[in-house]
Amino acid sequence: MTMEDMTSATWAPLSNAKFNRTIIERGVNLKDVACLPISLGWFGKKEENRRLIKVQCYSMEDTANFYMRPIEGLTVLLDMDTKEVVEVSDTGRSIPIPKATNTDYRFSEQKLQQDLNSVNPISIEQPKGPSFVIEDEHLVKWANWEFHLKPDTRAGVVVSRAKVRDLESGVLRDVMYKGFTSELFVPYMDPTDAWYFKTYMDAGEYGFGLQAMPLDPLNDCPRNAYYMDGVFAAGDGVPYVRSNMVCVFERYTGDIGWRHAESPITGMEIKEVRPKVTLVVRMAASVANYDYIVDWEFQTDGLIRIKVGLSGILMVKGTAYENMNQVEGQENLFGTLLSENVIGVIHDHYITFYLDMDIDGSDNSFVNVNIKRQETSPGESPRKSYLKAVRNVAKTEKDAQIQLKLYDPSEFHVINPTKKTRVGNPVGYKVVPGGTAASLLDHEDPPQKRGAFTNNQIWVTQYNRSEQWAGGLFVYQSHGEDTLDVWSERDRPIENKDIVVWYTLGFHHIPCQEDFPIMPTVSSSFDLKPVNFFESNPILRAPPYFEKDLPVCRPAYSA
Amino acid sequence: MTMEDMTSATWAPLSNAKFNRTIIERGVNLKDVACLPISLGWFGKKEENRRLIKVQCYSMEDTANFYMRPIEGLTVLLDMDTKEVVEVSDTGRSIPIPKATNTDYRFSEQKLQQDLNSVNPISIEQPKGPSFVIEDEHLVKWANWEFHLKPDTRAGVVVSRAKVRDLESGVLRDVMYKGFTSELFVPYMDPTDAWYFKTYMDAGEYGFGLQAMPLDPLNDCPRNAYYMDGVFAAGDGVPYVRSNMVCVFERYTGDIGWRHAESPITGMEIKEVRPKVTLVVRMAASVANYDYIVDWEFQTDGLIRIKVGLSGILMVKGTAYENMNQVEGQENLFGTLLSENVIGVIHDHYITFYLDMDIDGSDNSFVNVNIKRQETSPGESPRKSYLKAVRNVAKTEKDAQIQLKLYDPSEFHVINPTKKTRVGNPVGYKVVPGGTAASLLDHEDPPQKRGAFTNNQIWVTQYNRSEQWAGGLFVYQSHGEDTLDVWSERDRPIENKDIVVWYTLGFHHIPCQEDFPIMPTVSSSFDLKPVNFFESNPILRAPPYFEKDLPVCRPAYSA
Repeated sequence: MTMEDMTSATWAPLSNAKFNRTIIERGVNLKDVACLPISLGWFGKKEENRRLIKVQCYSMEDTANFYMRPIEGLTVLLDMDTKEVVEVSDTGRSIPIPKATNTDYRFSEQKLQQDLNSVNPISIEQPKGPSFVIEDEHLVKWANWEFHLKPDTRAGVVVSRAKVRDLESGVLRDVMYKGFTSELFVPYMDPTDAWYFKTYMDAGEYGFGLQAMPLDPLNDCPRNAYYMDGVFAAGDGVPYVRSNMVCVFERYTGDIGWRHAESPITGMEIKEVRPKVTLVVRMAASVANYDYIVDWEFQTDGLIRIKVGLSGILMVKGTAYENMNQVEGQENLFGTLLSENVIGVIHDHYITFYLDMDIDGSDNSFVNVNIKRQETSPGESPRKSYLKAVRNVAKTEKDAQIQLKLYDPSEFHVINPTKKTRVGNPVGYKVVPGGTAASLLDHEDPPQKRGAFTNNQIWVTQYNRSEQWAGGLFVYQSHGEDTLDVWSERDRPIENKDIVVWYTLGFHHIPCQEDFPIMPTVSSSFDLKPVNFFESNPILRAPPYFEKDLPVCRPAYSA
Repeated sequence: MTMEDMTSATWAPLSNAKFNRTIIERGVNLKDVACLPISLGWFGKKEENRRLIKVQCYSMEDTANFYMRPIEGLTVLLDMDTKEVVEVSDTGRSIPIPKATNTDYRFSEQKLQQDLNSVNPISIEQPKGPSFVIEDEHLVKWANWEFHLKPDTRAGVVVSRAKVRDLESGVLRDVMYKGFTSELFVPYMDPTDAWYFKTYMDAGEYGFGLQAMPLDPLNDCPRNAYYMDGVFAAGDGVPYVRSNMVCVFERYTGDIGWRHAESPITGMEIKEVRPKVTLVVRMAASVANYDYIVDWEFQTDGLIRIKVGLSGILMVKGTAYENMNQVEGQENLFGTLLSENVIGVIHDHYITFYLDMDIDGSDNSFVNVNIKRQETSPGESPRKSYLKAVRNVAKTEKDAQIQLKLYDPSEFHVINPTKKTRVGNPVGYKVVPGGTAASLLDHEDPPQKRGAFTNNQIWVTQYNRSEQWAGGLFVYQSHGEDTLDVWSERDRPIENKDIVVWYTLGFHHIPCQEDFPIMPTVSSSFDLKPVNFFESNPILRAPPYFEKDLPVCRPAYSA
């Protein structure tokens, strides 16, 4: 969809008499109606051969947070090209529109109150300025890293040609040819008429970069951040600037790069600690109600952490219930009663990353280093068991369809099979999952077919320039015929080839009252981490902090 | 063990002629020998009825990092009380002692080199000082939190009576009566003679707090940190002060508490972002070679994050191999060749936390909120499936023996069944696992019997004042007869009772060359997070940052 498709869809229902009548009959002024363009997925013949979209509306009377005031059960099916109203489904008339009370989140609207959260000003300060340079507006050089950064309408941010300098040889070494958010899949867990189709694919349908608004200096990124604009084409081809779309900043969090103190046991007087300073690239996409914060964080020890934060506003459902004591027995609300007449519907978030790793060159292999219990033979040892690492090189794509298992764990290495360290280990990086979730929908469910790239958490494919978007190049109303799942089933050879690793970060979200009226950020991450890539700890020689080097600060005048 | 047990054990072998002879024959000067006291676990009758310990030694010639120079295969079995040498096992004479080259990690020993890691000074600054107060030396009051902090020889740090202020009512509400590191389990994965017994339980055997050395200001904790001493009793009962054992600091990392920008779709001019400021309590224990960094981080949104970082130095094994090309076929090295003659042996780390939750009072219930696929009935919906949340209240302890499953996920709520929110949800907190690992050893393996508290990732027990240490009160040479596993098998009622939640954070560690000669920090965490505890987002009214409030900083004079 173009931005023009989306914005014009939000106004189109107002030209329909039936729509206007039901709005007025529900007691809402037409001037207070705010509508959202909702991609409708694909569930069969009905959605074929024309560009359709669904529109649902909210009352914005007395609040900027109209998302909390759904006009429940009213769904308009539109032809996206002609703006013709194809169908108005109007089922929830008995459901009241939730009140505006306590829904506004703007600072200007908060009642005065002794603020228990106030803390003395605290800030990341770097008065000599940043240590990175950005050449040609896009090539970031920081510490031992170099990479190219590109705002992108679909992916948000593309990080490419990431290279890290080897401190032993001084050589810049390839790590990743290109990495980006390839697709999102956000299925809601309510099969009823006004909800079943909510199974968003935010990158391919809405444009993850298209929805990235200018960042808020000091709040979205710390004071020492540099901002980068995006330059995009509008629907009519005219270029426009999305200012401050991406920020880049160095970060010191008080975390420790490495440390060792000799323990009291040895009595040696040694204490060596190195602070950790990193470089963060951030963007935040506001896909209507939801806000996604995507960080690429580069560490001097070679690690890249990719973190996704979720904030913003829930997509909620109106209900007649005001209290859980009105709910009988086993009735399924499809979510949590968050406030009177407001249900936060259960949903998942999957964010699938494209990671074209190039470890010291483009031809790499994927190794599943399986951690397996080995029982000892009778008499071999007082131990009955131990764990060993069994290396399995993936020959073809099906060997690298990975579902993570706590009780059958592995490390996932991308190695260069032709390059060894001094002592003979293949150089590599590993994908290190963090907290995550797996899609549990039926594989034959239409949304899961379209989102089949979430059937595994890790996939590895042979590089193919037409396979960049995990849900397919054309996702809107797609049937799931051009997904990562389909490509991987071709089972091409991937040993010592130019390969792409795909990692999906997932969240199950059962809303809770703390998510009302706006959600505290929840985040999770995964890492790309050197594994026998360097000969030894690459930050061994990093200096500690000394008091004499740190900034001299005083409180602000006005404080 | 007392510190005196440990330190005297390290010297005792030098009184043994056979030991001294083999040291000299291996080409090591007796003055260069550094030895470690190694708890020997329990593997049968042999270790019964006397306090035994094993001692292994290293050469500290030409390096402070003697851990990288093992005298392989030499194990001395000592009587800990009499210091009598019971047995000298001397098997690895053909294995050379690895060279000292490139092993020293001290800043003073680093060769001058253009430092590619150097960045302009960056720091967390808070020139008006911290926003917390510490009353009676131990009661921390910060923002909406209050809790008591106690350094402890066994647990390290004990956080107790943690309460959070409800911003609606102004009332301080109970969250956690007591939380601490109850036990660690660190089994090495090598069944051979000099290694099989290395299955440490660092809290109960060595004293997690006893091994916590003074923190390094500016490097272990940022400049704005406050330090707290520990006061402990030595083996002879005489008190001593462990200065700067714990630090407390406010942290701003550039992360976002919550945000929403209206998307281009709606065109509304709204951008509201709140920075996240937290309070961190930190200690670092150096259990001989390894360093554990334990953080308790308090957020104003009510979340408590417990994070464990691993750094320090690997326990390595000497080998005749200098390159992997010398290793034949399927030979099992039990680890990774890290440098010439040095193998980093595979091992696990488990850190088990005691969490006596008191959600608005001591009597709570544990609810497994299972996320289950529900297939729709034919004709019910265009969707074939969706996920629903099924609440199962644990009646007894066996109902709450939880192994985490990606494909059968749950949320784990501790609720107060007698207290409901305005709209009727039970108030609660949830345990949110992050990246973790499970022990895969045979349950009948002696170390796993002693470490049986790692058989599940979550357990819930009825409070019992004698059940605080997951591996048992007396862990040294224990047989596994007094563990959390044994207590839980009693299957006591836990519904609406004073209950204790146990969470185990795990790591599998296959060493890599980057871990040589000292390891970059690896960390993981889990959260205690409010779930319908508050009526709504408790940080809704938190203010954003304004430029006028932030510090004014300049570079240091000397910089």
